[in-house]
Amino acid sequence: MYDYVIHNGTIVSVDENFSIFEDGLICVLEGKISYVGKKKDSLPKARNYLDLNGSIVMPGLINTHSHIPMTIFRGLADDLPLMTWLNEHIFPAEATHIRPETARKGSLLGCIEMLSSGTTTVCDGYFHEDEACNALFETGLKGVLGQGVIDFPAPGVPDPSKNIEYVADYLDKWLTISPKIKPSVFCHSPYTCSENTIRKAKELAQSKGVLFQIHVSETKFEFDNMVKENGKSPISYLDSIGVLDKMTLLHHCTWTNEKDIDILKRSNAKISHNASSNMKLASGVAPVTSFLEEGIVTGLGTDGPASNNTLDLFLEMNIAAKLHKVSSLDPTLLNAEEMVKMATINGAKALGLDLETGSLEVGKCADMIVIDTNKPHLTPVYNPVSHLVYAVKGSDVSTVMIDGKLKMENNELKGIDSEKIMQDVSELSKIIKNG
Amino acid sequence: MYDYVIHNGTIVSVDENFSIFEDGLICVLEGKISYVGKKKDSLPKARNYLDLNGSIVMPGLINTHSHIPMTIFRGLADDLPLMTWLNEHIFPAEATHIRPETARKGSLLGCIEMLSSGTTTVCDGYFHEDEACNALFETGLKGVLGQGVIDFPAPGVPDPSKNIEYVADYLDKWLTISPKIKPSVFCHSPYTCSENTIRKAKELAQSKGVLFQIHVSETKFEFDNMVKENGKSPISYLDSIGVLDKMTLLHHCTWTNEKDIDILKRSNAKISHNASSNMKLASGVAPVTSFLEEGIVTGLGTDGPASNNTLDLFLEMNIAAKLHKVSSLDPTLLNAEEMVKMATINGAKALGLDLETGSLEVGKCADMIVIDTNKPHLTPVYNPVSHLVYAVKGSDVSTVMIDGKLKMENNELKGIDSEKIMQDVSELSKIIKNG
Repeated sequence: MYDYVIHNGTIVSVDENFSIFEDGLICVLEGKISYVGKKKDSLPKARNYLDLNGSIVMPGLINTHSHIPMTIFRGLADDLPLMTWLNEHIFPAEATHIRPETARKGSLLGCIEMLSSGTTTVCDGYFHEDEACNALFETGLKGVLGQGVIDFPAPGVPDPSKNIEYVADYLDKWLTISPKIKPSVFCHSPYTCSENTIRKAKELAQSKGVLFQIHVSETKFEFDNMVKENGKSPISYLDSIGVLDKMTLLHHCTWTNEKDIDILKRSNAKISHNASSNMKLASGVAPVTSFLEEGIVTGLGTDGPASNNTLDLFLEMNIAAKLHKVSSLDPTLLNAEEMVKMATINGAKALGLDLETGSLEVGKCADMIVIDTNKPHLTPVYNPVSHLVYAVKGSDVSTVMIDGKLKMENNELKGIDSEKIMQDVSELSKIIKNG
Repeated sequence: MYDYVIHNGTIVSVDENFSIFEDGLICVLEGKISYVGKKKDSLPKARNYLDLNGSIVMPGLINTHSHIPMTIFRGLADDLPLMTWLNEHIFPAEATHIRPETARKGSLLGCIEMLSSGTTTVCDGYFHEDEACNALFETGLKGVLGQGVIDFPAPGVPDPSKNIEYVADYLDKWLTISPKIKPSVFCHSPYTCSENTIRKAKELAQSKGVLFQIHVSETKFEFDNMVKENGKSPISYLDSIGVLDKMTLLHHCTWTNEKDIDILKRSNAKISHNASSNMKLASGVAPVTSFLEEGIVTGLGTDGPASNNTLDLFLEMNIAAKLHKVSSLDPTLLNAEEMVKMATINGAKALGLDLETGSLEVGKCADMIVIDTNKPHLTPVYNPVSHLVYAVKGSDVSTVMIDGKLKMENNELKGIDSEKIMQDVSELSKIIKNG
């Protein structure tokens, strides 16, 4: 007797062979996938049946980079140079308005946005990260959540000399609470953290066996400045201070030369690619096709909702696939299958979660999403994979299952008061707007 | 007594001052806008009231380039070099499957996709274009619809020597049927039509006072080849044969040099920019910021659904805004206001329809769309214009009015059997899939 039998739809499994099962079958027991493949002569017995009505089911998407609480600043300032945006809008807004209760409200909003657009696992980095953890715990998402480390006074960490201490306490707390919430160390960047801070943060992450995240080589300015000051590229610098290994996730890597790529390959560090953010902030085009050619694990991220301005990974797949084709003038690059992998299994690999999620395979967690294809813009369906990248929007996700539990069914989030969450942030935005 | 009074929402008027009215008011009488602006002390009398509940209302979007019937090939072939895609997939599929009844089915599907994602006016070009006209007429969209001219046997025009004759008959027919359906001459391109054909097609368009459309300078290959064969760029070539004037709409202009831009400026020709298509087919990045700096009228287009793969102009705004920022490494370029103008009033100017549509102003047709902002990914709202470009999806359009008549209300298309239209194309796709 299964908990769920899911049938009558197309399964995009994202297993090693990228198997697709038309009119397939998935069986779920105790939060895990017990069967995935062709349908059987008769439907297995189950407590619940999910009839897909010809829709597509695929692994839940994995967002490898965000700053979830920043939903409260979504659309606050756009079309500005990066430094104006940061120094005149975002940093002052954060200093004034980020407190535990606002981080909590923003995180809840981010969680319902991600759930309703098909993301089941997210890697985050921010301050008051306890609140992001709480929000994920409450809404049922999975995450790797990094408490921020920066050498400036920051929300919740007014004394930067205590930033490592603070993140150590955070790790100790969240390492024991839930297997769905994995704490992490989120070191802001090589230009906002000293060498000593970065080393200590990585040592702490290593000693606790958690993921170490850092923004790096996001802009040409950052790249050029690091070369000028240290005679090294940002990635070469991080390598030289010993923080690159398989438990390091590098956000952006927009400006990356051949030597950097060799370092990334050798060190086994992972990358989060954020096409929308890099385009909107005019940071540059990361050499993603080179990363993939060299076998460097590269996932997709939305970056924070203040610089994107959404958390929709379907939009990221669409945009990233197109960006790299046009920037190389080669339409065969980053094909639909590669994009779907980046948003699922490669994201899971980047976060060290590929044994438990990122594909629909026996023994893995039942983390999956249903895309309702009975819509004009998804008609007809010749190739479900092409649709996922070039036609589907986050709003086409109708049903979301995490660990075998339905979090959204037929576009209704379950057990979550979305109206209240949206209202809370709308009210908060009136205060933020007035400074 | 007005027909409609629309209230309790934010109006993005796209008038000359780009006026925005929070808690504004629109009054509609006999298909036209009678009032737009601040709310009055009491609501004017009307037969119908539309309470926006805090949503955004804006002009209906204007798609300046598509091949609507090609919805039947959506996702048939992707991630391929342009010539492989065309010669091995699209041209054979067209030769075998495009007939009046299939063009009709595909056009109806395109119309419901456009309506439900906020497009109220479309410029199209294809064969059997009568069927696109019929579909628009039936579903209530407005359009400038061009019958195709090409020097090869084409669907419905097996003898290319009769292509001008055929389009002349088409113009005569549709010039008198409905003011909402404006016929046009759609000359395929300088590389598929002889100089003589292009001249004759333009002469015909001029004699009838209709828009002349042509694909030009889409790829580097096309540009280089034209220079090699004629010693001229494609745009310079079109200029030399006298077909560029204010009633000419050029699709793509991806490869455009400074001299070309001077020609475009002097000739007053209009441009349709198709960011998604140019990216997905790896055609290149059109110098849109230069076009705008020089005052060349530039609208947005989706191109056909076989090469995009959707007809969602909100996605086009999002992608185009980001593309030009990153390709110039300047985040201030193509800001949200400019993008909204491109998708509305500039599109109307490109089609010669700016006296009747493209903005919410007194005397213009009541062509408008409502965006439901009560959704997680659109919360909070600091700046409605930024939201329209960076956060809204076509699926957020809840209500569509054309000429003062509701075509969609609260996400339900009115008087259109969408299920039947989708089913017809799904069944057709099974035949196409089998060759």
